Amino acid sequence: MNIRERVPVHTMLRFFLSSVTVLVLVSSLFAGAEDQDLITRSSQIFGPLPQTMPTEQNPITPAKVKLGKLLFYELRISIDGTVSCAKCHPISLYAEDGLKKAKGNNCKENPRNSPTILNAAAQISAHWIGNRTSVEDQAKQAVVGPPAFGMPSYESVEKILRGMKGYVALFQEAFPGEKEPVTVDNFAMAVGAFERTLMTPAPFDDFMKGNGGALTEQQKRGLKTFLDTGCMTCHFSPYLGGQMYQKFGILEPYGKYTKSEKIDEGRFVVTKNEADKYAFKVPVLRNVAMTPPYFHDGSVDKLDRVIWIMAKIQIGKELSEQQTGDIAAFFRALTGKISEDAMTVPILPAME
Amino acid sequence: MNIRERVPVHTMLRFFLSSVTVLVLVSSLFAGAEDQDLITRSSQIFGPLPQTMPTEQNPITPAKVKLGKLLFYELRISIDGTVSCAKCHPISLYAEDGLKKAKGNNCKENPRNSPTILNAAAQISAHWIGNRTSVEDQAKQAVVGPPAFGMPSYESVEKILRGMKGYVALFQEAFPGEKEPVTVDNFAMAVGAFERTLMTPAPFDDFMKGNGGALTEQQKRGLKTFLDTGCMTCHFSPYLGGQMYQKFGILEPYGKYTKSEKIDEGRFVVTKNEADKYAFKVPVLRNVAMTPPYFHDGSVDKLDRVIWIMAKIQIGKELSEQQTGDIAAFFRALTGKISEDAMTVPILPAME
Repeated sequence: MNIRERVPVHTMLRFFLSSVTVLVLVSSLFAGAEDQDLITRSSQIFGPLPQTMPTEQNPITPAKVKLGKLLFYELRISIDGTVSCAKCHPISLYAEDGLKKAKGNNCKENPRNSPTILNAAAQISAHWIGNRTSVEDQAKQAVVGPPAFGMPSYESVEKILRGMKGYVALFQEAFPGEKEPVTVDNFAMAVGAFERTLMTPAPFDDFMKGNGGALTEQQKRGLKTFLDTGCMTCHFSPYLGGQMYQKFGILEPYGKYTKSEKIDEGRFVVTKNEADKYAFKVPVLRNVAMTPPYFHDGSVDKLDRVIWIMAKIQIGKELSEQQTGDIAAFFRALTGKISEDAMTVPILPAME
Repeated sequence: MNIRERVPVHTMLRFFLSSVTVLVLVSSLFAGAEDQDLITRSSQIFGPLPQTMPTEQNPITPAKVKLGKLLFYELRISIDGTVSCAKCHPISLYAEDGLKKAKGNNCKENPRNSPTILNAAAQISAHWIGNRTSVEDQAKQAVVGPPAFGMPSYESVEKILRGMKGYVALFQEAFPGEKEPVTVDNFAMAVGAFERTLMTPAPFDDFMKGNGGALTEQQKRGLKTFLDTGCMTCHFSPYLGGQMYQKFGILEPYGKYTKSEKIDEGRFVVTKNEADKYAFKVPVLRNVAMTPPYFHDGSVDKLDRVIWIMAKIQIGKELSEQQTGDIAAFFRALTGKISEDAMTVPILPAME
């Protein structure tokens, strides 16, 4: 059977024209040959940011996202009343807190640096050492985490939420048909659904879609250096990271170059597998220019220095000042736009 | 000279029709006689909320407000990197933190409860005991306040701000022509200008403008009880407070009814004047239903109980459960709308 006999030509044409692939090909007519090579390589290794970060385990619904955003700002469910998700992930700083290590209830220091939660939900796991399976698991465990919200039990969190009529109604809407929707599991689902919508499309996405002018010449040089150096061996996917674990300091111990106060054994803490010693989840590089300080312990402030260290101890290449500067410039093309909705603070239900 | 000879009748009519007084009179045709009496009394004692809270000392300009909003969220100018204005005044909780007493840097407890900064800039002073002359003075002193931002000096704050190019440009725009615009004084002016725009018009304003239906029957009863009991003796002006100091516990010591851990000498701490013992600034009642816990020490959670205590120890009246409930209902008509701009989080300049 010939498909042409069954589908009118104009329908095929419409379908054809609507495909992203074709758009990229058409736009590429306007991009130079060098740009085109970079666009093609980038699209293959990374690919533009998707619209959301869905999962079968927690379908994204507007009601869940709405509730999740409120819960993201909720600090009355922490043991000292000061900790919300937004505390360590303030949107004003690209959802990262600017500290070396996050501070939770009663100013307790967390073991590692807060990563941004923008573009974060599609990683293989949550936390630097992968001791949380997903953003939902992270949210759930945070409320009872001793250096996080520090609540004594899940029940104590549920009791507070059930005490506010505004929340009861919102949980009912987000989890229809459930007899007791106000649970920490649903808290985690709602916060997770909200986080799964936090995308920040950036100039680099426009570039990958075929707009060669979306990056400056320096940024293109930086991208090329990033690829030629081999950084994308670990920092791949639309998130430029988050898809694997890697030993920090393949060729030399990281403490030789960072200002680390102590050496963290990384994923070994979770698996007790010798091969995981000093391994960390490869961080997402989206918005990296906006989220210092760097590394799992926030031990280095300057982006250029971070780039130099990584090339040196992971790949064995000593980048020049120009090369690190170019890569840093490329990283600024990963600084994306936060949606208006994510930038709007919700008003929390009244305590009654 | 007769004005009628010089001004055309239609001009006078236009002027006449545009005046708010007339609008109130016209609307009042649709309000019942009892409503009208309440509207008139309320308009005289309180009056609708103005558009902003201006001051000659710090003219409100868009550039200052824009910068002030960023600085309001800036936590990198605190000694432990966790304190911003927004920490004790999160918009999500009507610009109050929900704690008994505010917690500043390194979890230090502040001496008193955080008031909301919505509709707050037109008070006689800032802080419960009036030890700050204005919102600008409050902002300035907060950055070096030991339990607040805790910075060692104004210079240390200025150094951090001057280190971020994004801020330098914004200060230049907000304070044009100044040789060195990035100063803590200008920080305070910008934050103050932002705060002077934070108004939350509420159903009660519509009521005062002549819309009798803006309040429920219970809210009207509550308003009447509020007036008849004499609460407006202290809680007057469009802010329902903030215009005077008053002894807390005129007829009986407040500690008899609150759950205060210690007795605060109030404004006496500032003036050393015996007459100011236990005196506090009368708090603004706008959004009071959204900002528990109550009193200078956050020692009472429930609004009904607060109302009962105040009538008892300030005026010597024992209100019934219905009366306190009615006044609480009236207070909910003071819960206003926060502007979209105030609910949008700004993105802070990158640390370079």
